[in-house]
Amino acid sequence: MQLGIIGLGRMGGNIARRLMKNGHEVFAYDRSADSIETLAKEGAKATTGLEDMIQQMAKPRALWVMLPAGDPTEQTINTLGQMLEPGDTIIDGGNTYYKDDLRRAKALAEKGIHYLDVGTSGGVWGLERGYCMMIGGDKETVDRLDPIFDTLAPGYGDIERTRGRNAPDERAERGYIHAGPAGSGHFVKMIHNGIEYGMMQAYAEGFDILKMRGSENVPEEERLQLDLADIAEVWRRGSVVSSWLLDLTAQALAQDVELEKFSGFVSDSGEGRWTIEAAIEEAVPAPVLTSALYARFRSRQKATYGDKLLSAMRFGFGGHVEIPQ
Amino acid sequence: MQLGIIGLGRMGGNIARRLMKNGHEVFAYDRSADSIETLAKEGAKATTGLEDMIQQMAKPRALWVMLPAGDPTEQTINTLGQMLEPGDTIIDGGNTYYKDDLRRAKALAEKGIHYLDVGTSGGVWGLERGYCMMIGGDKETVDRLDPIFDTLAPGYGDIERTRGRNAPDERAERGYIHAGPAGSGHFVKMIHNGIEYGMMQAYAEGFDILKMRGSENVPEEERLQLDLADIAEVWRRGSVVSSWLLDLTAQALAQDVELEKFSGFVSDSGEGRWTIEAAIEEAVPAPVLTSALYARFRSRQKATYGDKLLSAMRFGFGGHVEIPQ
Amino acid sequence: MQLGIIGLGRMGGNIARRLMKNGHEVFAYDRSADSIETLAKEGAKATTGLEDMIQQMAKPRALWVMLPAGDPTEQTINTLGQMLEPGDTIIDGGNTYYKDDLRRAKALAEKGIHYLDVGTSGGVWGLERGYCMMIGGDKETVDRLDPIFDTLAPGYGDIERTRGRNAPDERAERGYIHAGPAGSGHFVKMIHNGIEYGMMQAYAEGFDILKMRGSENVPEEERLQLDLADIAEVWRRGSVVSSWLLDLTAQALAQDVELEKFSGFVSDSGEGRWTIEAAIEEAVPAPVLTSALYARFRSRQKATYGDKLLSAMRFGFGGHVEIPQ
Amino acid sequence: MQLGIIGLGRMGGNIARRLMKNGHEVFAYDRSADSIETLAKEGAKATTGLEDMIQQMAKPRALWVMLPAGDPTEQTINTLGQMLEPGDTIIDGGNTYYKDDLRRAKALAEKGIHYLDVGTSGGVWGLERGYCMMIGGDKETVDRLDPIFDTLAPGYGDIERTRGRNAPDERAERGYIHAGPAGSGHFVKMIHNGIEYGMMQAYAEGFDILKMRGSENVPEEERLQLDLADIAEVWRRGSVVSSWLLDLTAQALAQDVELEKFSGFVSDSGEGRWTIEAAIEEAVPAPVLTSALYARFRSRQKATYGDKLLSAMRFGFGGHVEIPQ
Repeated sequence: MQLGIIGLGRMGGNIARRLMKNGHEVFAYDRSADSIETLAKEGAKATTGLEDMIQQMAKPRALWVMLPAGDPTEQTINTLGQMLEPGDTIIDGGNTYYKDDLRRAKALAEKGIHYLDVGTSGGVWGLERGYCMMIGGDKETVDRLDPIFDTLAPGYGDIERTRGRNAPDERAERGYIHAGPAGSGHFVKMIHNGIEYGMMQAYAEGFDILKMRGSENVPEEERLQLDLADIAEVWRRGSVVSSWLLDLTAQALAQDVELEKFSGFVSDSGEGRWTIEAAIEEAVPAPVLTSALYARFRSRQKATYGDKLLSAMRFGFGGHVEIPQ
Repeated sequence: MQLGIIGLGRMGGNIARRLMKNGHEVFAYDRSADSIETLAKEGAKATTGLEDMIQQMAKPRALWVMLPAGDPTEQTINTLGQMLEPGDTIIDGGNTYYKDDLRRAKALAEKGIHYLDVGTSGGVWGLERGYCMMIGGDKETVDRLDPIFDTLAPGYGDIERTRGRNAPDERAERGYIHAGPAGSGHFVKMIHNGIEYGMMQAYAEGFDILKMRGSENVPEEERLQLDLADIAEVWRRGSVVSSWLLDLTAQALAQDVELEKFSGFVSDSGEGRWTIEAAIEEAVPAPVLTSALYARFRSRQKATYGDKLLSAMRFGFGGHVEIPQ
Repeated sequence: MQLGIIGLGRMGGNIARRLMKNGHEVFAYDRSADSIETLAKEGAKATTGLEDMIQQMAKPRALWVMLPAGDPTEQTINTLGQMLEPGDTIIDGGNTYYKDDLRRAKALAEKGIHYLDVGTSGGVWGLERGYCMMIGGDKETVDRLDPIFDTLAPGYGDIERTRGRNAPDERAERGYIHAGPAGSGHFVKMIHNGIEYGMMQAYAEGFDILKMRGSENVPEEERLQLDLADIAEVWRRGSVVSSWLLDLTAQALAQDVELEKFSGFVSDSGEGRWTIEAAIEEAVPAPVLTSALYARFRSRQKATYGDKLLSAMRFGFGGHVEIPQ
Repeated sequence: MQLGIIGLGRMGGNIARRLMKNGHEVFAYDRSADSIETLAKEGAKATTGLEDMIQQMAKPRALWVMLPAGDPTEQTINTLGQMLEPGDTIIDGGNTYYKDDLRRAKALAEKGIHYLDVGTSGGVWGLERGYCMMIGGDKETVDRLDPIFDTLAPGYGDIERTRGRNAPDERAERGYIHAGPAGSGHFVKMIHNGIEYGMMQAYAEGFDILKMRGSENVPEEERLQLDLADIAEVWRRGSVVSSWLLDLTAQALAQDVELEKFSGFVSDSGEGRWTIEAAIEEAVPAPVLTSALYARFRSRQKATYGDKLLSAMRFGFGGHVEIPQ
């Protein structure tokens, strides 16, 4: 099947490769000519721009936009909306805000252009293992492009079947779902990332407590010098906290248990934030997911203004002087 | 190798079975005669009590106590301490508070009796998959009882090796570690369970937000009726939130996505609480693990006194009347 | 000075009364004829509608809208925007979202109409004690309407002057500020309410812990039956947790320490939610304000779906059955 | 009335002064001879040590220990317990853990010595305004020493009476209570401090959000440069967030709104930690009080090990590189 891919970064490039390896025909574009050339050498059709891509492809076309969420994606989709024809499809595989999907799908539908939002998980591992995909949009288009999704997905693999599962749609077991109308794909992916934040922070706190057990904060007779790399490793087998994130933790700790090359400045993407906004809109308490987001915010500040205000109040009330930094 | 097992419940019984299946000789005791008889039919040596168990076993003996933490374990270990001889070993495989281990190990050492604390994860799945074990105590005893641990552990299995791992002790890769001196095993298991609470709550909040998206709390035009069973299923493949807990979630949702047989009263064991106490002792912020614990506390109350006080303050200040229940 | 007041509820009615008591001329409208009549008997000019109010008043007019935030306020301001003339002023005294202020101020400015957003705190106590006001809008209009604000504000009172204060604008010491351009008033009021949530929850949790100390959750020998009404009372004097909210707490507990007439279903207004959204936009960690909001969300649910999922996971992994409800 | 005071720091010295000003006879001891001399010049009886103090005082004696909680207090009370006679009283006015009170009261009772635990709030302001006191111990002793407590307490002052209050014990309205048996005084004071942490953090977060609104984290067209000193000031009048802590905030901001002399390293005392432990023992969710404690823990670390682990996981999964510090 033909697919145009716009954006050949870590994700877009590997998506192209996984498709080509399985016989699909990929048309590639990136603002970096080098990226296009690299992929062309691996079998992709190089294009010189969106216009060129559209002209090279057979109708109805499907174009997968794999760019940073926000302006780059928005502008590209706007441009495509002006160039494409009724029956064509735009796929946004990035981390777009689901309310933007609603708006775009509506505007494009007026021109007869289909819009799919595909939440895509897989990181740098997707080329090899496949991508978990959550797809929003109209059923007909999702079904028509099934060969693409089927190829990108991990497939059944050797993962044990879920006991008691008796569902009509077996795509979930191969690693992709049609989640619902436009916006659904990115909504589900957003919550996925919110959960990811929470799980990561759960491990982070647990290992922090293990590590600090050997420090001066603990009375000398109760101090324990624990081997965190071994602990992460042992939990990978037979333990209820085993997970892919734990595998990654074990890898990081195997390489350097002190994690010295990391300063601990932790970014957050929009999805963690939007998850909390969704929770608040729905009046769902989400203390764990929110705490995980706030830990990232806090990691990027030396001292908050709020901390200083606490010190100032303590000084004003009790004459307490700050402990030395 | 010989092992006495005291307490033949869900965990103790299956530990016995896994050992016997692999050629070890198990001496079994439980306060329920039926439990002893059942296990004796499967090959265990029945005993009529602690005294009898001790007399039947060859020296030096190793007795694994697998009872509820707190009084039942404490009393049994006290009694054993009076009956056993120098060189014998008591293993506490339950969920004991690590500070109790420190105290016990010290007292037993004065009598020449060895004490191992073995944090054991595996749930109802351990018989088949093996148990992940975190062991505290003296090296010599841990090494001597290695055949027991080696049998109970999951083994290498088909789990991918951790990239970059180059550690001298390969036991971690087979599913058990000697974590350190007495108390270390239960300390590591305690943190394990603290992390488990956090991960479980991360999933719980995420699925709550997904579910509530279809409710009246969301404006009608933005409501989504999402298939939570399919979502749990799809995340099992290629997604970074895949884990054993997600597998269990997928099973539960496959059976009844409304979870109607559950009322949502969630117990907590001591380990979640002690994890927070350890964090506070160490001055480590643990907002995710704590939020997870508090969600369980809250799940068991209809309305807190604090909630009522909020309503009372609102009434006093603004004349606000509570929304109807 | 003349002021039109639209909305004669608990807040609007008392604002009218405080102004009239101090010699201002109030034009009153409410959709309830009874409310208008009541206030007319106390000296207000009755009006039959917005059009009538506008015609009765001298130019330039100032109209204070004191309606529930959201649709009622929005529609009234839209209507007024079509009826009023250049130089007139609309004041929104309600709990409006600050981004709505930005939009409205811009639209009205194109017609030469001024717009002030006035965050107003005072509850049912404002008539007697005065209202604390945070005002957003253009300086000229704020200055021109100063007699209104000066009357509504509490004034210096017998509150001790802030040590070290040496600020050019003494209005803050009389209980009102010009916070900045349109939206600033409601932004500051929004944060005010966010802080209020946090403080209320701090007291709620503290009294909950005091109360539960006498319950079966505590070992019998450590139980304390504490007199919560006396505790609230004693903290009102000389203690660093003294506050107006504590005064209200003391009142509530003096009347019924069991708070039996309250079920503990606690509403939240938009301002608590928007505070968290603002924090997230700014990447400021706000765990206390967020926890306070979530406690209110949780208070309104019997059991969350998330709680049920926790029970289901526990059952799936460990065979744990829920504790009875 | 006679009172011996051991420890003449900020609290002990001013307690002595307030008592002497009102006609009580104070016997003073401190390990600093200068402190004793200073207070002797103001009218106190100097003593050369505990033994000397005991011999100078008439029976039955009352000795107020006002030392840092932990070892200094413990050792002094142990020593006094060996020196004093039946009928004498030891008062611990510090921030002692309430479980230590239980132990001490029991041990001293065996010798016929009374023990009172007095939670004392008042900070550097107590000399002038009086101290809010929460007293634990036997009724007879509390009643006998009433002249001391009555003098130290703030008294009715000009604080409005609580509406609806109709309680037999009017001491609460004068600023002190007999909370219950030994340990009760410090338990109530502990919760008082827990609430204080929560309230402080509520203000800290609110002002942080106000401050950050003017930063680059906010899109330029939505930025607001707010006058935080004016905002704190205006909330002191007629607003529901008015409190003593807000008064202190207003003072700090009046002096330097940037709080430049504070680095934001915030200490915590035992009471904040024990409050959380008490909540956990009672299974009371206390997310606000806990978040406030954790914010202090976090304020004292540059980067947590947990933060580094988050960065490492992000790198491992998505190839994400940390944002520059």
